[in-house]
Amino acid sequence: MATTMAREIGEQPAAVAATLQELLPRLDELRNVVDGCRQVRFYARGSSDAAAVYGRYLVETRAALPAALGSPSIATLYGAEHDLSGTVGVFLSQSGATDEIVSTLSWASACGAVTIAVTNDESSPLAQAADLAWVTRAGTEHAVPATKTYTCQMVALALLAEGLRSAPPDEEFLAALGRLPSAISEMLQQTAAAEATAALLRDRRALVVTGRGFTASTAQEISLKIAETSYRPALGLSAADLEHGPIAVLDENSALIVVSAQSGPARDGLAAIAANAAARGSLVIGIGGTTLAKHCHVHLPCPPLPEEVSPAALVVGGQLIAEALCRADGLDPDRPRGLSKVTQTS
Amino acid sequence: MATTMAREIGEQPAAVAATLQELLPRLDELRNVVDGCRQVRFYARGSSDAAAVYGRYLVETRAALPAALGSPSIATLYGAEHDLSGTVGVFLSQSGATDEIVSTLSWASACGAVTIAVTNDESSPLAQAADLAWVTRAGTEHAVPATKTYTCQMVALALLAEGLRSAPPDEEFLAALGRLPSAISEMLQQTAAAEATAALLRDRRALVVTGRGFTASTAQEISLKIAETSYRPALGLSAADLEHGPIAVLDENSALIVVSAQSGPARDGLAAIAANAAARGSLVIGIGGTTLAKHCHVHLPCPPLPEEVSPAALVVGGQLIAEALCRADGLDPDRPRGLSKVTQTS
Repeated sequence: MATTMAREIGEQPAAVAATLQELLPRLDELRNVVDGCRQVRFYARGSSDAAAVYGRYLVETRAALPAALGSPSIATLYGAEHDLSGTVGVFLSQSGATDEIVSTLSWASACGAVTIAVTNDESSPLAQAADLAWVTRAGTEHAVPATKTYTCQMVALALLAEGLRSAPPDEEFLAALGRLPSAISEMLQQTAAAEATAALLRDRRALVVTGRGFTASTAQEISLKIAETSYRPALGLSAADLEHGPIAVLDENSALIVVSAQSGPARDGLAAIAANAAARGSLVIGIGGTTLAKHCHVHLPCPPLPEEVSPAALVVGGQLIAEALCRADGLDPDRPRGLSKVTQTS
Repeated sequence: MATTMAREIGEQPAAVAATLQELLPRLDELRNVVDGCRQVRFYARGSSDAAAVYGRYLVETRAALPAALGSPSIATLYGAEHDLSGTVGVFLSQSGATDEIVSTLSWASACGAVTIAVTNDESSPLAQAADLAWVTRAGTEHAVPATKTYTCQMVALALLAEGLRSAPPDEEFLAALGRLPSAISEMLQQTAAAEATAALLRDRRALVVTGRGFTASTAQEISLKIAETSYRPALGLSAADLEHGPIAVLDENSALIVVSAQSGPARDGLAAIAANAAARGSLVIGIGGTTLAKHCHVHLPCPPLPEEVSPAALVVGGQLIAEALCRADGLDPDRPRGLSKVTQTS
């Protein structure tokens, strides 16, 4: 019998389609709320934090606005007094019930920011407290590891970045988002490659997941998925951060998972780091990319999508690998030890 | 014979004192350059990135200005066009020769930012290109893993945050910085505890390093030091990020290193996460804190310092542990495999 996590991974085409349907008609409403803002700050934890990193790249490259990840502790522990006028604060929590994020939203609002909640629950405290609730339609997620709520957050952030642009609507980008459900469905066919990968990863001393630019966030999310389901301390790093030291962990007892779009300025560097890892004797698993495949022991191809849109399909390959690795270890991916669906931090 | 890394760890009291002596007289010069700026963005890789995270907390809490870590790829790969007027860009590189950071500085300058280089080489390309070169005086660092250049960067950032304050000079804070050389000297006495820790860590399946608030950056740096010298994929995470998933890796085959100041709002939560890890059967190593000690199998105390200043002494405990662990593994900490002193990324 399939695990709940596997079932929810499979629900992503429908969840992403429902989220697009929910939010596309609301772009003008969003534009009114963010009108005149000159920068964006994201606040999140866990998988939502990885989604926020993706959102930051979207805003910085597509909307040409400076964006950043904010640290909730600046608000909740240190109570700093900042001037956040002209700033859009984006607060991500699938449950909308993480006190730390709700408190940080209240703080940012008091500092003068316009606040947007990205959440899967429109009646949650986070949604209620925000100037705008930008609601995903993933349906209830039962497994503790976030999968369909994560890809729906990505779609919500892609539309958020679209709404922040001063240019006319980018029909090509919106059309690419519309192709995501079918692209994710194609990714879902790769269970055999994911099972083969899991068998190869099982006895590896060290696991590292890397991406660059738009896929750096995907690497972060896949490493988190592996850590919380298989209890392995997988490093999730941008390829540039990997080269500045941690690459030393890669050897014949290690594995590197490389996540790459099919196009864009990060692609060739990611193929090069895969080649470097293979030369160190490391097992190399590829998700996406083009020439990347030739350096990989197992390669999960991704259907053609623009670089900016592809992470929401690429991450599905990593979800399949994490779920398969967890089962191969004889563990239950639906209920990782010591974790609950809503994590409370202060 | 001591390793070069061990010798350079021991040179930190003098290096920090020299950096204070260099930069304290230049605070007015700094104030003139940053006058009127309303926010700060840091750009760095590797250990310099961990220092930047520390700098961000200093600026956000002590100077009450929004600050953020910028992603160099937004400039170097995507060439985004941002309005960075009113922004101080701080670019960190001990060598001042990392092309990616030099290119990002040029980009930020063209976007209207005021640029400050934090580097150990005043004649480096980074120092030459910046509006202000804020130079550390660590002396030449020979070992590949950064130690004395890192603590000197921290001191440089503490003085940078002081210069960004609109309030009168904080004599108490400056006096605490002045006590750092002697506090680091005290930390250096704890080689026996570091050796004992290394012996305990050797056979652990997973290593995690955590802090919160000001010590989150210290945890990041210690995990990097372990990864690059002992080739172990140590996770370095804030305690809040740890609780949102990765804490599942902690069990009787794992180890958690907790880094805590002796005071401040993060301290009690860090003692609580140490207790949580001990309850999971994990080995727990403490650096600093107060009540933290009672949950630890080995504890390295830190001399009394204000929370904001303590990370530059606390990190020394982690440096000693990383160096001892590397030697215990029969490796050479001075020349980690496949790394060089200046890493070039694009």
